[in-house]
Amino acid sequence: MRTTQALAAAMLALCLSAIPAASADEGMWTFDSLPVDRLQQAYGFTPDKAWLDRIQKASVKLGEGCSGSVVSGDGLVLTNHHCVANCVQELSTPANNLMAAGFLAPGQREERICPALDASILQSITDVTARVQLAAKDAALSQMAGKRAAEIAMIEAEACGVSRDKRCNVVTLYRGGAYKLYVYDRYTDVRLSFAPERQAAFFGGDPDNFNFPRYAYDMALVRLYKDGKPAKFAHPLQISPGGAKEGDLVFTSGHPGSTDRLLTVAQLQFQRDQFLPWRIEYLAQIRGSLLNEATKGEEEARQVAEALFGIENSVKVFKGQHGALVLPSFFGLKFAEEKRLRDALAADPKLRSKYGDPFADIETIVAAQKASWLPYQMLEQRFGAGSVLLTNARTLIRGAAERGKPDSQRLTEYTASRIALRERAILADAPVHASLERLEIEFWLLKTREYLGADHPAIKTLFGGKTAAEIAGEIVSGSRLDDPAIRRSLWEKPALVASSTDPAIILARRIDAVSREARTAYDAAITSPLSAATEKVAALRFDVLDLSIYPDATSTLRLTYGAVKGWTDPVFGEVKPFTYAAGLWDRATGAYPFNLTAKWAGAKSAITPGLQMNLVTTNDIIGGSSGSPLLDRQGRIVGLVFDGNIHSLGGAFGFDPALNRTVSVSSQILLEGLRKIYGATALADELQHK
Amino acid sequence: MRTTQALAAAMLALCLSAIPAASADEGMWTFDSLPVDRLQQAYGFTPDKAWLDRIQKASVKLGEGCSGSVVSGDGLVLTNHHCVANCVQELSTPANNLMAAGFLAPGQREERICPALDASILQSITDVTARVQLAAKDAALSQMAGKRAAEIAMIEAEACGVSRDKRCNVVTLYRGGAYKLYVYDRYTDVRLSFAPERQAAFFGGDPDNFNFPRYAYDMALVRLYKDGKPAKFAHPLQISPGGAKEGDLVFTSGHPGSTDRLLTVAQLQFQRDQFLPWRIEYLAQIRGSLLNEATKGEEEARQVAEALFGIENSVKVFKGQHGALVLPSFFGLKFAEEKRLRDALAADPKLRSKYGDPFADIETIVAAQKASWLPYQMLEQRFGAGSVLLTNARTLIRGAAERGKPDSQRLTEYTASRIALRERAILADAPVHASLERLEIEFWLLKTREYLGADHPAIKTLFGGKTAAEIAGEIVSGSRLDDPAIRRSLWEKPALVASSTDPAIILARRIDAVSREARTAYDAAITSPLSAATEKVAALRFDVLDLSIYPDATSTLRLTYGAVKGWTDPVFGEVKPFTYAAGLWDRATGAYPFNLTAKWAGAKSAITPGLQMNLVTTNDIIGGSSGSPLLDRQGRIVGLVFDGNIHSLGGAFGFDPALNRTVSVSSQILLEGLRKIYGATALADELQHK
Repeated sequence: MRTTQALAAAMLALCLSAIPAASADEGMWTFDSLPVDRLQQAYGFTPDKAWLDRIQKASVKLGEGCSGSVVSGDGLVLTNHHCVANCVQELSTPANNLMAAGFLAPGQREERICPALDASILQSITDVTARVQLAAKDAALSQMAGKRAAEIAMIEAEACGVSRDKRCNVVTLYRGGAYKLYVYDRYTDVRLSFAPERQAAFFGGDPDNFNFPRYAYDMALVRLYKDGKPAKFAHPLQISPGGAKEGDLVFTSGHPGSTDRLLTVAQLQFQRDQFLPWRIEYLAQIRGSLLNEATKGEEEARQVAEALFGIENSVKVFKGQHGALVLPSFFGLKFAEEKRLRDALAADPKLRSKYGDPFADIETIVAAQKASWLPYQMLEQRFGAGSVLLTNARTLIRGAAERGKPDSQRLTEYTASRIALRERAILADAPVHASLERLEIEFWLLKTREYLGADHPAIKTLFGGKTAAEIAGEIVSGSRLDDPAIRRSLWEKPALVASSTDPAIILARRIDAVSREARTAYDAAITSPLSAATEKVAALRFDVLDLSIYPDATSTLRLTYGAVKGWTDPVFGEVKPFTYAAGLWDRATGAYPFNLTAKWAGAKSAITPGLQMNLVTTNDIIGGSSGSPLLDRQGRIVGLVFDGNIHSLGGAFGFDPALNRTVSVSSQILLEGLRKIYGATALADELQHK
Repeated sequence: MRTTQALAAAMLALCLSAIPAASADEGMWTFDSLPVDRLQQAYGFTPDKAWLDRIQKASVKLGEGCSGSVVSGDGLVLTNHHCVANCVQELSTPANNLMAAGFLAPGQREERICPALDASILQSITDVTARVQLAAKDAALSQMAGKRAAEIAMIEAEACGVSRDKRCNVVTLYRGGAYKLYVYDRYTDVRLSFAPERQAAFFGGDPDNFNFPRYAYDMALVRLYKDGKPAKFAHPLQISPGGAKEGDLVFTSGHPGSTDRLLTVAQLQFQRDQFLPWRIEYLAQIRGSLLNEATKGEEEARQVAEALFGIENSVKVFKGQHGALVLPSFFGLKFAEEKRLRDALAADPKLRSKYGDPFADIETIVAAQKASWLPYQMLEQRFGAGSVLLTNARTLIRGAAERGKPDSQRLTEYTASRIALRERAILADAPVHASLERLEIEFWLLKTREYLGADHPAIKTLFGGKTAAEIAGEIVSGSRLDDPAIRRSLWEKPALVASSTDPAIILARRIDAVSREARTAYDAAITSPLSAATEKVAALRFDVLDLSIYPDATSTLRLTYGAVKGWTDPVFGEVKPFTYAAGLWDRATGAYPFNLTAKWAGAKSAITPGLQMNLVTTNDIIGGSSGSPLLDRQGRIVGLVFDGNIHSLGGAFGFDPALNRTVSVSSQILLEGLRKIYGATALADELQHK
């Protein structure tokens, strides 16, 4: 019989089992710390420096959340449709909906500038750990984060100066275990060359998202420009028309956004019990609103499409993460990992005097976090719930205030090395959708009141005796911040911002002090001490675990390796690694989201039925890896990463080699689609270096 | 330092502390098992049989989810506005929106029939435990629930026959520890006498819901009719115009819907990790859809208002429950409670041979439940997501099928004793709101596909190659089930149902076998064995715990006792027990949901500022208790229960005496409002037995 005591004993027994070494294909490796021995042992392959350099210099960080690769000497970049969907949406009009129709530039001259998209390519990595750590050496816990941020801003400014062709970021790795300066070539002129119909890219829609078998043509081509001309590249990647075979070794090179694999048990419990349930509830509600908004008419549907895609995607991601954290086996592994570190700490007085007990520190901080995270989220992190008008208003207000300060005292995102991103967003000629704005502003106001309570002082400040609908209506009908020229004048003449009577600026101004206060308080009580404690945990890991480990994903360039391989699903049984073109026509029902576009419906006879369509591999990726090339040993593109399976979502917290899979478009359908469905012969030739 | 081992040890230590006896005011007691000693000790009061009988015979079960009390010899019933809101909504038209304007019948002749509301008053309780248990004595686990249900149906049929003036329900108490036959007088003719404007009843709206201080006039009056005349009552309750004072002993008598205080740790974890996060996500999405639907126009807003209220209320309830379950202190208490029982079981071979290990059994069942609960929920429990057309279609299909079977083989809700409720719902002349129907049907289809996956056979059956929007559109525009005459003819001639080409019936018929299968499978694998194991846990509690315990709430009549008392809130500090009329005008901002209605705004000078408005007491209530009278020692009404505070939501799983509070409308404002704001002199006189 299992009494409770027996259960607890069983749990402890579980903890005593050794922590497993990183599983075969686990890891998002930085290019300067690839585990070559392990790779050689598993796959009999060791990339040389030339191989790594060539891949690195062709790997593109696209916008803030995607990847891509340079595939021609003229700066053509292969990525996903969903990575350029915002651009396609912005270039669309009610009369010419490029999301529905797709886009093919007949020639380079017809390529169209993506208003808010930029691209960066990593050129160098420099270790600056000692300098950053030194800057905060004697600071109080609550000051530490600020001191470091100031030093980081200085390092970045020194490296980049005022250049707009470079991007310099000091990246925090291993949760503070290391700081590295990443210097990128930056491209602010990115133009759309080709995008298929969204329905071809996203066949199966939300139901198929994060699922497999899959039949999506989720690709697009953009071109990088420098001084108005296509940027030149000496060593672009080449596409392999044959694709890959089951069992083949494959790599991805891209910019996975964020993982939390080094979180402690207390932090994971906070994710499981507070953060994720809240985030899912928040997103589910606005999802419902957007879905309903789309029923108002075609134009409303067009306006909300991109926001809806992003939110449905996020709902799946967070539900997948929550699903992993409530699996006893998954949490048990995390528990065991932490126990090994805590036991090592308990057994070694030297380690204790060096680190104290960072796990207990984190437990204390997380307990405090439960009381303060929601005001911080709603007033600062989620400000405006995506409203472009409110976001712009805040950027103008803060831009004016922050540019008047020395770099070391500015909010991080307004430091010299980062302000260009803010400026680009403000000046971009992107449309503002009235329906969506109204919906987002009202939603944000109502949820903020719901979470903080009607009697919270911030709520009285925000509402001022009006309803959320009235406030949203006034902003949407009265704000002129939808006009790029007005934004430019306010950005360039900060003094005008203070006296502006624009309703979006008035609201953002009214709440700005409160928002900053929530941020400052949260940074001092949570972020800063958490970062100090987490850094100790990270350092302890280096001391105790004698295996090579990779840093959590941080939107920086990583190489992963793996094999083309299906999996055995606990619910659906054996899943094969490939889908083939014929399956697309079998799956099509005619009804959205399983409908074919006219082009695809008409091309059935032209497409070889046995052509590889999508495939799964064991590479370890996460959101942000979208658009990464899938490469073979020769560094040729055999596929285009666009998704992970449902089990990959737990990858935020840990990698399950049995279930976690990357999903790619095969190079076979990629080329055949361009040639036979879209008649994009010139682009296909360029891709194949013909 | 707290290592993991130390942590686990601390958890075990926690478990060793004794289980506390039920706290002072905890308990929803049946009238035949009131803990009179404890009550006498705490408050120096013991109610006699006459007192109890009088309260019981004046306590009304209203519809399926509310309570009320008979307050005049002519069958006038006092309850909450939100308990009759569906009726008010059904009596409203675009031209005459009673939700907005309120309703006062000038005389009895103008009282208006509530189409779908009925009322029941408990007359007798008979123990039938032995008979029900005997029926399933030798049955296999998977058959047990079915055998019991058949026996229960027979007991109910014997007691009630075909009478429509009675209602006979065998109630499961103590999770199967006892079965009792409840016989009620039933009233199917319930008429609306008075309802204030919804905004007066629900001042503060969703933000204030489950919060306090509070300023709601959440009351309404209906009248019970028998044979077309007001029903007569010899001993109605009387209202006390003076209200109550801080510290006073007060009772509630009503029908709390459902609590889960006897759930095991495994079941609570299932609630915390699977069920509640899912339910919140599901409801949050439809909440967003309804909120946005209401922006389409006044008529759409009117149509969705009641559904939206219900859903926002549920979101708060489930979030409150989840919030309690993620509190380490709350879960620790549950863990300790269970440990005491498991230890007693482990220590006593006699108990082990009598019960086996029901806790381990439940763990196994819950593990299986994780795989099967979602199809069951979506195909059976949540069928149609509230759509009246689909619900009616299913009732017609199942009504036709089930009435052809012997009572013992029918689905529970179609047995002779329960079918009257189905029939009443089908025949009720309630309007069908097209916008709401379309929204609910589409939502249900999409969520079912999302949760079950596009490749699930049920999904192919449901969708048949169409989109959710198309299917919803066809049903809403094509179904005639919005016409009560059509529903009546189909109900009365079951043969017509099989050949009906009504699109709602076609869809419900197409999926009915699959839904029934999901239900049968779930009952056999989960419900039935869970009930057997839970019954053992319940019996073990009787054996081990030498304190009197009350059964989980089951929508049956319960008496609670407590005191008028504020609380010290962990976030907001000290909360006083009363609010006063003056506070309402202070709190009003003019903007929804903090706006006064014209009647209230104009009556400021007429209302005594120091009049009691709302109050909190320590009574132990839960959803379903709404509308219960708050009674003093003399059995006089001093208030009207309409809500609990936010901490009362954890009451689903356990009672926290420090925080859990009941919220009522004081009898002071109740009477003064009727007289001075609504000019409802005759009704106020009737209430006061003048």
